[in-house]
Amino acid sequence: MSRVLGLRVLSTAQALPARVVPTSEAAALCGIAPEVALKRTGVHERRWLSGAETALTLGAQAAREAVTAAGLEVAQIDTLLNASGSQLQPIPDGAALFARELGLRGAATYSIHGTCLSFLLALNHAALLIGAGQARHVLIVSSEAGSLGLNFNQPESALLIGDGAAAVVVGPAEHDGQGVHAMRVVTYPEGADHTRIRGGGSLLTPRHPDVVPQDFTFDMHGLSVLRLASQVVPDFLEGLRSGLSTGLPGIDRVVPHQASAAGLDLMRRAGWPAGKTEVTLTHLGNVIAASLPLTLHQARTGGRAKQGDTLLLVGTGAGLIAGGMILRL
Amino acid sequence: MSRVLGLRVLSTAQALPARVVPTSEAAALCGIAPEVALKRTGVHERRWLSGAETALTLGAQAAREAVTAAGLEVAQIDTLLNASGSQLQPIPDGAALFARELGLRGAATYSIHGTCLSFLLALNHAALLIGAGQARHVLIVSSEAGSLGLNFNQPESALLIGDGAAAVVVGPAEHDGQGVHAMRVVTYPEGADHTRIRGGGSLLTPRHPDVVPQDFTFDMHGLSVLRLASQVVPDFLEGLRSGLSTGLPGIDRVVPHQASAAGLDLMRRAGWPAGKTEVTLTHLGNVIAASLPLTLHQARTGGRAKQGDTLLLVGTGAGLIAGGMILRL
Repeated sequence: MSRVLGLRVLSTAQALPARVVPTSEAAALCGIAPEVALKRTGVHERRWLSGAETALTLGAQAAREAVTAAGLEVAQIDTLLNASGSQLQPIPDGAALFARELGLRGAATYSIHGTCLSFLLALNHAALLIGAGQARHVLIVSSEAGSLGLNFNQPESALLIGDGAAAVVVGPAEHDGQGVHAMRVVTYPEGADHTRIRGGGSLLTPRHPDVVPQDFTFDMHGLSVLRLASQVVPDFLEGLRSGLSTGLPGIDRVVPHQASAAGLDLMRRAGWPAGKTEVTLTHLGNVIAASLPLTLHQARTGGRAKQGDTLLLVGTGAGLIAGGMILRL
Repeated sequence: MSRVLGLRVLSTAQALPARVVPTSEAAALCGIAPEVALKRTGVHERRWLSGAETALTLGAQAAREAVTAAGLEVAQIDTLLNASGSQLQPIPDGAALFARELGLRGAATYSIHGTCLSFLLALNHAALLIGAGQARHVLIVSSEAGSLGLNFNQPESALLIGDGAAAVVVGPAEHDGQGVHAMRVVTYPEGADHTRIRGGGSLLTPRHPDVVPQDFTFDMHGLSVLRLASQVVPDFLEGLRSGLSTGLPGIDRVVPHQASAAGLDLMRRAGWPAGKTEVTLTHLGNVIAASLPLTLHQARTGGRAKQGDTLLLVGTGAGLIAGGMILRL
């Protein structure tokens, strides 16, 4: 893609569960030593839902704050994209549930789903809608309740996953060059079994006679993911922009999906300058599709992603899917 | 939207379950008389999965046939969009599973979800991708296994739902004016509880202590859907193209979602010429997101949707969501 797809990030917001779970607590649930858990994952603490919190309430809260921060009224949102890795409810689509919670009637609402890269895909879709004149103010909501699908017999994922929500409002570009400079998504389906939740869809319904509760939990083979990712990521990055596999040509800040400590290490290519990568994994864990917008929010509020800066949003997700966007703010 | 978004439908294909279920059989499962069932639904027969068939095998079969019918090899598909109302598996995204089944490596694969309108949304997204130079050959797969979620104590939906898959390959326009002339999607979330499957997502997980098997089945209040749809559809249609609520200005053929007999009657506005609407409900039932591409496939193979024709793709889905596209072939 040679043209720039105009897009402006008007606001970002987050909503985190009240309950902070230190790694010592999560490690105890898994029956392993806290220092081992910390070393393996790089996660010091994460948030888990408690009380009346749900992915719906958190997502709606982040969405309301993002709309306000954009200087808009809810009624000015013409498109609401649900970009979450986990479903709220099989039917109707989660976007309609967020719309009801927000009191938003008359907008287009639907979901874009690509597990951990859902937000990246939705952001690109928003840019396409705006470019074609089909939308003007797009609200993207990523909200996750992965803690409900943890298997404490699999510490690898159980120690990694956190809950949380983020929302982003985007609109038309105000300046030439503001927006999406490159977008690339590639799926390597030989990795489809490396990260999965097998049960709950039509292939293994909750009513299936052979289903067991464990089928509704994360099943992750981190080493297989890393092996495949380390094979494909360099070429993937070169295809996004030449030189990205060994450096950061024209990139001010990297906003990666927070897959895992090893995943972040893999993404920080040897030639990438130290300190250019935004990290939320340490205090939020892997928040599935919400990790990317939560990390973008942190970069913006921390002053490390300002208007005119060029960001690399990048990551891998279950599939195995790799995705990256070069975005000028 | 005033510009035409260039798009060409290269092929359509379908894959139907082998098992044909006459309405007498479905009615017996619900404990009601066959003639009552037929009168209520307008469905004479539908297909339900049997044996080794799954939404994955059917979707992959339709996809392979669509790729071949487009004169392409699988490897020439650069984007695979899963546009199904029901999930194959919570993780990874169903598009990666379809890609593995097809032997498609290196394409972008993800899902667009808006229950029954998923295909319409994916078709628009494909046009946007192609228009921006982000894709060239997009394969859209809609595959449904709704029979696995039937509640025979609720004949309203249990008599209506059928299984099946359809796939469509699209590419860049070959002629001026070929493509999307208008696209509109509007959600009226006051209808979010009218059609639902409550259990299975994070709001009511399969592991929740209060969940009962019935929570994983369709819960539909057809009268409430119809009441809301009849209020909003005329204005919705006028917003898509002026005059559509009372006639078919510039439209050669209507390809509607097959919600129900009453839903089709509602869509066939008073002023729409008789015989202009394509119907598959009678022999396939409501196949959720696959209904629209299955009905498009029937219109094409029956010679009622030819190159140069202008189609109105239109329908409502759970949400309540209304969607319409004016597409010149």
